[in-house]
Amino acid sequence: MADVKKVGVVGWGTIGAGVVDLLYRKGIPGLELAKVCDLDLTTDRGLTLPSAMLTSNYHDITDNPDIDIVVELIGGIEPAKTIQLTALRNGKNVATANKKLLAKEGEVIFSEVVKLGRKIGIRASFVGAHSFIHELGLVGAEAKEYRRIYAILNGTTNYVLSKMTGEGKSFEEALKGAQQEGFAEANPTDDIEGYDTENKIRILLGLITNSYKYAGQFPVEGIKDIDVQDIKYADELGYAVKLVGVIENNDKVFNVAVQPALVPRISLLGSLQGAYNGTEFEDEYGVVSGLVNPGAGRYPTADTVIKDLLDIAEGRTLPIPSTAAGYKLGAPGDIQRRFYLRFTVLDQPGVLAQITDIFWKFNINIAAVIQKESAQTEFVHIVMTTYKAREEDVHAALEKVNNLGPVKAATKVIRILETSC
Amino acid sequence: MADVKKVGVVGWGTIGAGVVDLLYRKGIPGLELAKVCDLDLTTDRGLTLPSAMLTSNYHDITDNPDIDIVVELIGGIEPAKTIQLTALRNGKNVATANKKLLAKEGEVIFSEVVKLGRKIGIRASFVGAHSFIHELGLVGAEAKEYRRIYAILNGTTNYVLSKMTGEGKSFEEALKGAQQEGFAEANPTDDIEGYDTENKIRILLGLITNSYKYAGQFPVEGIKDIDVQDIKYADELGYAVKLVGVIENNDKVFNVAVQPALVPRISLLGSLQGAYNGTEFEDEYGVVSGLVNPGAGRYPTADTVIKDLLDIAEGRTLPIPSTAAGYKLGAPGDIQRRFYLRFTVLDQPGVLAQITDIFWKFNINIAAVIQKESAQTEFVHIVMTTYKAREEDVHAALEKVNNLGPVKAATKVIRILETSC
Repeated sequence: MADVKKVGVVGWGTIGAGVVDLLYRKGIPGLELAKVCDLDLTTDRGLTLPSAMLTSNYHDITDNPDIDIVVELIGGIEPAKTIQLTALRNGKNVATANKKLLAKEGEVIFSEVVKLGRKIGIRASFVGAHSFIHELGLVGAEAKEYRRIYAILNGTTNYVLSKMTGEGKSFEEALKGAQQEGFAEANPTDDIEGYDTENKIRILLGLITNSYKYAGQFPVEGIKDIDVQDIKYADELGYAVKLVGVIENNDKVFNVAVQPALVPRISLLGSLQGAYNGTEFEDEYGVVSGLVNPGAGRYPTADTVIKDLLDIAEGRTLPIPSTAAGYKLGAPGDIQRRFYLRFTVLDQPGVLAQITDIFWKFNINIAAVIQKESAQTEFVHIVMTTYKAREEDVHAALEKVNNLGPVKAATKVIRILETSC
Repeated sequence: MADVKKVGVVGWGTIGAGVVDLLYRKGIPGLELAKVCDLDLTTDRGLTLPSAMLTSNYHDITDNPDIDIVVELIGGIEPAKTIQLTALRNGKNVATANKKLLAKEGEVIFSEVVKLGRKIGIRASFVGAHSFIHELGLVGAEAKEYRRIYAILNGTTNYVLSKMTGEGKSFEEALKGAQQEGFAEANPTDDIEGYDTENKIRILLGLITNSYKYAGQFPVEGIKDIDVQDIKYADELGYAVKLVGVIENNDKVFNVAVQPALVPRISLLGSLQGAYNGTEFEDEYGVVSGLVNPGAGRYPTADTVIKDLLDIAEGRTLPIPSTAAGYKLGAPGDIQRRFYLRFTVLDQPGVLAQITDIFWKFNINIAAVIQKESAQTEFVHIVMTTYKAREEDVHAALEKVNNLGPVKAATKVIRILETSC
């Protein structure tokens, strides 16, 4: 083992407290906690540190010649960006859980790391797929390409969808429950709207393309319009509804999106419960593998930070996007996919025929139909799944369908992803 | 990248052909295929190698001063053991997929590797959990201990059980189908009896305890007595039946077994279909993660061999058990676990009361009961799940139950494992 590396931690919140605890109380061979920075030094973290170790000025860490590695755990763009860049420029290596910063400003951070010949550990920005990142960066990318990644990367949305599925709760009820149980934040926008998943997908995309170029815009859709009704119909058809980050690689043209999707209930992603994260990936040989990890939490995240610190301390390679080399995003409308559709129509004969006639003209073939006998209301649902169809064709067809007289509400559309493990 | 390492492959079978293909046809930077050995050099592998590269004498590889790394892919104990030891003693590093050899003779192989300061890549002995092995050996073991591992590590048995579950086939029918489709070998004993899983569990145990000491005997039970009836009842109770390798760590006393078990259907292991392998592991912080990998096949396995070769070529650490340090196996009878029980009884009143009375005396509490109205036969099934009970108590109670007059067949017992991701 090399000599002991001194570690400074900026951000003594939930994750920071876990990292500090592991370094200071448990003790990790080869690593020594030197200093901890937080604006709030008085809150009880269940651990008393010598006051000489504490500071509320991050320069005491980033500008401290005794410190070898700076752990940035405050999140957000600034001052996190300045802290990381200052540390790097002052000759230090960095570990971070800051997925927002890496997704938005990765080009600046990663190119600086490469230019200065430093290391940055980013596993903790991505707890839900850390073994994957690890493997990618070590030998995966050298030996092969990834053809397809489907990933559930946000614990809050998965928890909410699990509750809607298991207990038949509405989105609002499930979210409220998640907040009460501490799984969702008071302001859950980043999670619910899919932005958190987007950040992680951007980092993953950078890793598998080895490129820190900002990927441009791709479709990002959250789960707040998911109706418990659709979850029930999906279940009847053998599917679960999940928020899935999609990366599909067709000869360096990437189809990237974050969207709710139906996945087979009996599959790694379909069976993923609670706040867990899961990733299914297919390599260039058609080999499909999967990972399940707790998406967040003090110790899961702290543990991944420690792994990065050990890799840095012992001089091992860390995966980061290291070139500006380009790739293209495909046009979302061109993607061929299966779809779940729920129509709300008047309970009268001939409606199904009108719909299928429009579909026929747009080259959309139907795989399954559920039509229940009418309940108390005058409207009925017709639920369909399609075979693969071009996304733009489906939307064009639905525009026509939604204008039919007996169709009484905009048709619900959810993509179907054919996960395979 | 370091200079190019020359690789000799012994064993040009299914996996060997994959490795040769990747090295020779695709080309992996840093690695060069130097020689291939097989007794049969004439079978068409879809690739023609220069005849100078071919040999049927493994000494042309193990004793060849030009070769840096020897890949042993012939399997079995001898001559595989001699090949590996000769290569190591001649200054070469080794990569292998030979789980049987590593499980049975790991003490000899690993201690030689350590003594000589060589490297051995063993990922491919363990395709179904390769990221896990990787992580374990790199930073996992240093940073933390594993508390519990539940793993489905045999593709054949999982394929057979999936067919029994999905299509209601008997064990014999499902096995026959698996053989016809090429998923099961003509002689499937090692798979079906659990010995293949046992080999992998032995290697895993060695890795997590960092110990090449032979672990002694632990219970190993296969799937041939699993009745499709029990699969159906399990399904009704929300469980799937799987062949699971178990490692539970209670303060260095290890409970190790390979046994059929009920696992929640909606969980990573419970939802594992076809020939996939899956592993669920809990670390010392209570963090549970999971992996799904194709358990076998040419490219999945060849790909893991390539990863080992790249790690060796680039001087990275490889995970192997490196000390003889000891640990203890716990007594199987002492284990506290939940159980699934199926009684075959005469359809007469009072039987359930007699059974529950015996259970009461042995401290066994019942969690759920299914008793169907009698069908055409004079016997009925009573299915129960218990709360946690001592394994020995359950067997003692069942001995009494099986002697009751109305009990007409030995009670079926399957363990329940509480997987959590």
